[in-house]
Amino acid sequence: MRCDRVWRGARLATLAPSREGLGVIEDGVIASLDGRIVHVGPASDAPDFAADEVVDVEGRWITPGLIDCHTHLIFGGNRAHEFELRLAGASYEEIARAGGGIVSTMAATRAASEEELVALALPRLDALIAEGVTTLEVKSGYGLSRAAELASLRAARALGAARPVSVTTTYLGAHALPPEAKGDKDAYIDEVIALLPEIAQGKLADAVDAFCEGLAFSPEQVARVFTAAKALGLPVKLHADQLSNLHGARLAAEFGALSADHVEHTDEEGAAAMAKAGTVAVLLPGAFYFIRETKVPPIDLFRRHGTHLALATDCNPGTSPLTSLLLTLNMGATLFRLTVDECIAGVTREAARALGLLHETGTLEVGKSCDLAIWDIERPAELVYRMGFNPLHTRVWRGK
Amino acid sequence: MRCDRVWRGARLATLAPSREGLGVIEDGVIASLDGRIVHVGPASDAPDFAADEVVDVEGRWITPGLIDCHTHLIFGGNRAHEFELRLAGASYEEIARAGGGIVSTMAATRAASEEELVALALPRLDALIAEGVTTLEVKSGYGLSRAAELASLRAARALGAARPVSVTTTYLGAHALPPEAKGDKDAYIDEVIALLPEIAQGKLADAVDAFCEGLAFSPEQVARVFTAAKALGLPVKLHADQLSNLHGARLAAEFGALSADHVEHTDEEGAAAMAKAGTVAVLLPGAFYFIRETKVPPIDLFRRHGTHLALATDCNPGTSPLTSLLLTLNMGATLFRLTVDECIAGVTREAARALGLLHETGTLEVGKSCDLAIWDIERPAELVYRMGFNPLHTRVWRGK
Ligand SMILES: [Zn+2]
Ligand SMILES: [Zn+2]
Repeated sequence: MRCDRVWRGARLATLAPSREGLGVIEDGVIASLDGRIVHVGPASDAPDFAADEVVDVEGRWITPGLIDCHTHLIFGGNRAHEFELRLAGASYEEIARAGGGIVSTMAATRAASEEELVALALPRLDALIAEGVTTLEVKSGYGLSRAAELASLRAARALGAARPVSVTTTYLGAHALPPEAKGDKDAYIDEVIALLPEIAQGKLADAVDAFCEGLAFSPEQVARVFTAAKALGLPVKLHADQLSNLHGARLAAEFGALSADHVEHTDEEGAAAMAKAGTVAVLLPGAFYFIRETKVPPIDLFRRHGTHLALATDCNPGTSPLTSLLLTLNMGATLFRLTVDECIAGVTREAARALGLLHETGTLEVGKSCDLAIWDIERPAELVYRMGFNPLHTRVWRGK
Repeated sequence: MRCDRVWRGARLATLAPSREGLGVIEDGVIASLDGRIVHVGPASDAPDFAADEVVDVEGRWITPGLIDCHTHLIFGGNRAHEFELRLAGASYEEIARAGGGIVSTMAATRAASEEELVALALPRLDALIAEGVTTLEVKSGYGLSRAAELASLRAARALGAARPVSVTTTYLGAHALPPEAKGDKDAYIDEVIALLPEIAQGKLADAVDAFCEGLAFSPEQVARVFTAAKALGLPVKLHADQLSNLHGARLAAEFGALSADHVEHTDEEGAAAMAKAGTVAVLLPGAFYFIRETKVPPIDLFRRHGTHLALATDCNPGTSPLTSLLLTLNMGATLFRLTVDECIAGVTREAARALGLLHETGTLEVGKSCDLAIWDIERPAELVYRMGFNPLHTRVWRGK
């Protein structure tokens, strides 16, 4: 078989749905041609390869390249000072008066040029890449004006050109109400919707997201955004049921959303609706940890109904300044009691599903992009068990 | 002034006790000669330097090199499989039957040669060093036999020769009861004590530690170890009040211990006794997080009585497989509500105090070892606020 590269001597966690658990192949072989996987299987069944390069990975584990399916990587400034004030006992009011909160991030994002937004995001992206991330989602949502949302989406796209990584972009205009809207959420939602045709035409976003919560937007307002997005052929996803149960999970399912994210307060009806619609539950334990939430997402309900479970960093300056997907795995296990297999599937196969990219990446199967993470570990559980340690040996994106 | 190296253009967090808070000097200068700090202060007051090298740090922050004052870095194997089994619902009994628990670490530690113990610990040490750690403590305590405890202490010492880092070693024979002791804790404590003269003579340990808890050793047994250690001139420290209040903090204070560590269940009498004795409270939020403890250490009591507070990773395979001191800072703030200044002091000045090394390191003051961490940050709070991100620019150990 003609190929560019063969990796042999590998223990493969293929995540192929046709196999049990992590889809393990002991003593496996994987081959790529033109950036695609052209063969994967046990060494005993391997064809003869005519390869430019053969890599002996010496018993290391290979998983699919990791996928961070929920990030807010594009923003200006940071909120370290606000964090410090809060620890020193300042109230939310005092922090708001000191210029804190999401409005401070909005102001810093608007003040930055598109190039600056890219430069600010690159160290965060590099931290993710260093742990084997080959695909990630990046949302807008800190511009909250026509110009700044468009600049944020262009900056997000530019990240994918600046580094060897696949980036999908999401328009999150309905993230928060900017001060100039003077409390008129419906009028602001009109503006969010008015921007959609330009975003769709310019292919600036691969999906549309919203934040459904008392302090953000109502289910009715979200439904207006989703209806407009779907009319333009844009898939939707939702920040749902994080702080209270507004039935965001059900709403997401009704619109056939790719995912409903956070979902701490989702009830059984929501979990069942998501399973039926194929809407993935994206769990964000970094935000849960950072804001000291106590309501754990209803994992058992999701399991019982067969709702797909993904895990992501939610990297953002206000509630999850987290740039380690490996630490996210540990938090998924420690805080949410996900199993090792659920954690690893949650940042590979299920994260790809949450981005509508399961045909393209997320498992080691013939025809998919050859995105690999090669690990210096004895068993996959080590990826979940350790905290603050990076056992990545090599990362491969599109065969290289 | 004659010196080897000058760093200028720095924002210094000196941690000098003569200054407020972090002891900040904006636009500071620091100079080293033969590995020692020979000058530190504002640029406006700086003498003329005759230096071999002048480094402009371009407005970056410099803190003392970080200190991890409580680690169990020397051990064989890992407990990822046990972690996996527990997430899958296995009981403690089932895990013990599958060969899990501390006995599995003991067996792997005994099976390893001294060179292997060093090789196994180096990646963990390198992860700490990569975040600016210049001094750390390393305990024995997984050998639990004469030969394996001595090998562990020699391996711990060897770490300091293998890398540019200062290592202090601690003998923790009284960590757990090995199976061959057949439940006779007093007889095992006799063995622990019998090893002390050899350890003292060989200068294998800088301190002696014990684990005071129902499932480990009683206050009376600990007191016997401490009495013997002190008779040999060895300072003591204690794993105290982690899971219950056996008045370990008071016991540690009575022996003038360097530190009492964990101290989740310490009461006011213990906190006051520690303050009076100068015994540092070493907080270990990684273990608190990993075993999902809910009892937070009595921070307000410690503050009220003026007990010194340090923070450490407690890196160990059973309850804190954590190799990031920066993440430990975030956990100290997020889980224990320490302030930013308390967190940063806790891994510099107070950690040095907990090791009896405050005359040598932990602050930027003339006469101390020139151990520096130079950071790409805008304010020190960023070291605490972020999760899974390493903003270290340069690390300096003994002036280099
Ligand atoms: Zn989010
Ligand atoms: Zn410990």
